[in-house]
Amino acid sequence: MENKPYVIGLDLGGTNSVFGIVDADAKIVASTSIRTKGHADVNEYVACCCEALRPLIEQVGGIDKIKGMGIGAPNGNYYSGTIEHAPNLEWKGIIPLAKLFSDGLGIPVVLTNDANAAALGEMIYGAAKGMKNFIMITLGTGVGSGIVVNGELVYGSDGFAGELGHVIVDTSDDARLCGCGRKGCLEAYCSATGVARTAREFLAKRSDESELRSIPMEQITSKDVAIAAGHGDQLACEIYKFTGELLGRTCANFTTFSSPEAYVFFGGLTKAGDLIMNPIKEAYDANVLNIFKGKAQILISQLDDAQAAVLGAAALAWKQ
Amino acid sequence: MENKPYVIGLDLGGTNSVFGIVDADAKIVASTSIRTKGHADVNEYVACCCEALRPLIEQVGGIDKIKGMGIGAPNGNYYSGTIEHAPNLEWKGIIPLAKLFSDGLGIPVVLTNDANAAALGEMIYGAAKGMKNFIMITLGTGVGSGIVVNGELVYGSDGFAGELGHVIVDTSDDARLCGCGRKGCLEAYCSATGVARTAREFLAKRSDESELRSIPMEQITSKDVAIAAGHGDQLACEIYKFTGELLGRTCANFTTFSSPEAYVFFGGLTKAGDLIMNPIKEAYDANVLNIFKGKAQILISQLDDAQAAVLGAAALAWKQ
Repeated sequence: MENKPYVIGLDLGGTNSVFGIVDADAKIVASTSIRTKGHADVNEYVACCCEALRPLIEQVGGIDKIKGMGIGAPNGNYYSGTIEHAPNLEWKGIIPLAKLFSDGLGIPVVLTNDANAAALGEMIYGAAKGMKNFIMITLGTGVGSGIVVNGELVYGSDGFAGELGHVIVDTSDDARLCGCGRKGCLEAYCSATGVARTAREFLAKRSDESELRSIPMEQITSKDVAIAAGHGDQLACEIYKFTGELLGRTCANFTTFSSPEAYVFFGGLTKAGDLIMNPIKEAYDANVLNIFKGKAQILISQLDDAQAAVLGAAALAWKQ
Repeated sequence: MENKPYVIGLDLGGTNSVFGIVDADAKIVASTSIRTKGHADVNEYVACCCEALRPLIEQVGGIDKIKGMGIGAPNGNYYSGTIEHAPNLEWKGIIPLAKLFSDGLGIPVVLTNDANAAALGEMIYGAAKGMKNFIMITLGTGVGSGIVVNGELVYGSDGFAGELGHVIVDTSDDARLCGCGRKGCLEAYCSATGVARTAREFLAKRSDESELRSIPMEQITSKDVAIAAGHGDQLACEIYKFTGELLGRTCANFTTFSSPEAYVFFGGLTKAGDLIMNPIKEAYDANVLNIFKGKAQILISQLDDAQAAVLGAAALAWKQ
């Protein structure tokens, strides 16, 4: 057998592309990053990436030491190795990214969406270690998900399964418009932008004091809410309560589907700790069907934010 | 290798228990049934079943010719082989039914819930033949489901996954109370009893003519709605439209989970044909996330009602 002790993991985000060369013990032995933005042509982007990777590859003994590459990318499709119509990337249409990297580096390359990569990282290295059924919910600019059933990621018939951020959670006429063009999606409420919208709604319809009132309404971000809540600001705390309750109620619905052993939450909003996790747990318990009560754990990711996606992408390459 | 060309399938319903001895080509070579009701003691029920099976087993050459037995039963748990707290059966608590039959017959016995057994039957013999990702929705007295992901039934961490009848579809204050004790479950709207409730609601709040008005309000059943719709009764047709739209919208949400190749609908309500299937298809297309549009088929089960569950249970025994 060949001696190929490393894989390359790439966390491809809308702003930055982070690379790690990872060994079988999930140690990132070398890493680098480039800006994702500013490469209008994807071929030129891949060339830049290969250039940035060259010294790292040499450092571990050359490309012969590398088994393959895994990529986590928005709208990434595992089956086809393509990125399809990603709204936050500059490349439009269907981009055969796995093939481009495979041609550029001369190694096998697999690709999946970022939330799936994170779930894989969590299963192999993090809070879901050893679990065969769990659901990862990523609370970032959007709401993403990676679903593991029987120890395998759920890709569905087309490679796009696990889009729980777009489950409709509000069917009323005044439900929020989502970036996907539909109304009432979970993402419109429980993403970072959703939290900022909740802040604006609360401030508009309530009259109690809050330090958030010192910020111009349209400039409020989820970070401002986090800071205010950290100061004990009542209104900011209630924004987390509202967000957590909706997440908990919605997860109770997800349980009827795959009855997971755990939900693992990842991303900026989880930094609020108990302020958001307690409402999630309480709403989950109050709303889940009787036979499922007390069964699923509600967890926060144990992976370092900066490393989770790279490790997940690397795990994809190991699993190949 | 032993020559065991048959399995036994048992469709255990609240009223009747139907047995089939099934060969590898899904041919039911012998069948019988007994009443499920009236056996207060489960041991006595199993003894009766074994007694009823004896001549069938002799007919195919004795128990040595039988590889095993599969059971589809309400609240059946695949992992433990038990029936747990089934509201429609006389045996309360946790019943180790697989073990009781295995002891009684001397062959391996596996058990799952009735909707999962139907999904397995559909995958091996019916409309989902060859599919690796589909969702079976059973529209009967309740609403059940069997979910197949990567060619395997989804049992979840506890054996109870796939309870899509208890996804909350109405979060408003006046949502209907479900038999499970919660409010707004799909089952409270799209089961046979849900359809009868819709009929009563429509009749109460509308004033247009309908042949359903000749039936005492509290006695209306889904069968009455079917008969009226068959006569072209406008109000009855709109009951199906309401039911189908809700099913279609809800399935659009399910797709974000597992992006199935198809939804297969099974049970009494599907007899309404286009009256219910067209609203399901239209609402599904109108509500599903863009990337999933035009992908999933919306199908009616191709299995004979009376045989589907027995064949599914038998399939479980073959898969063992």
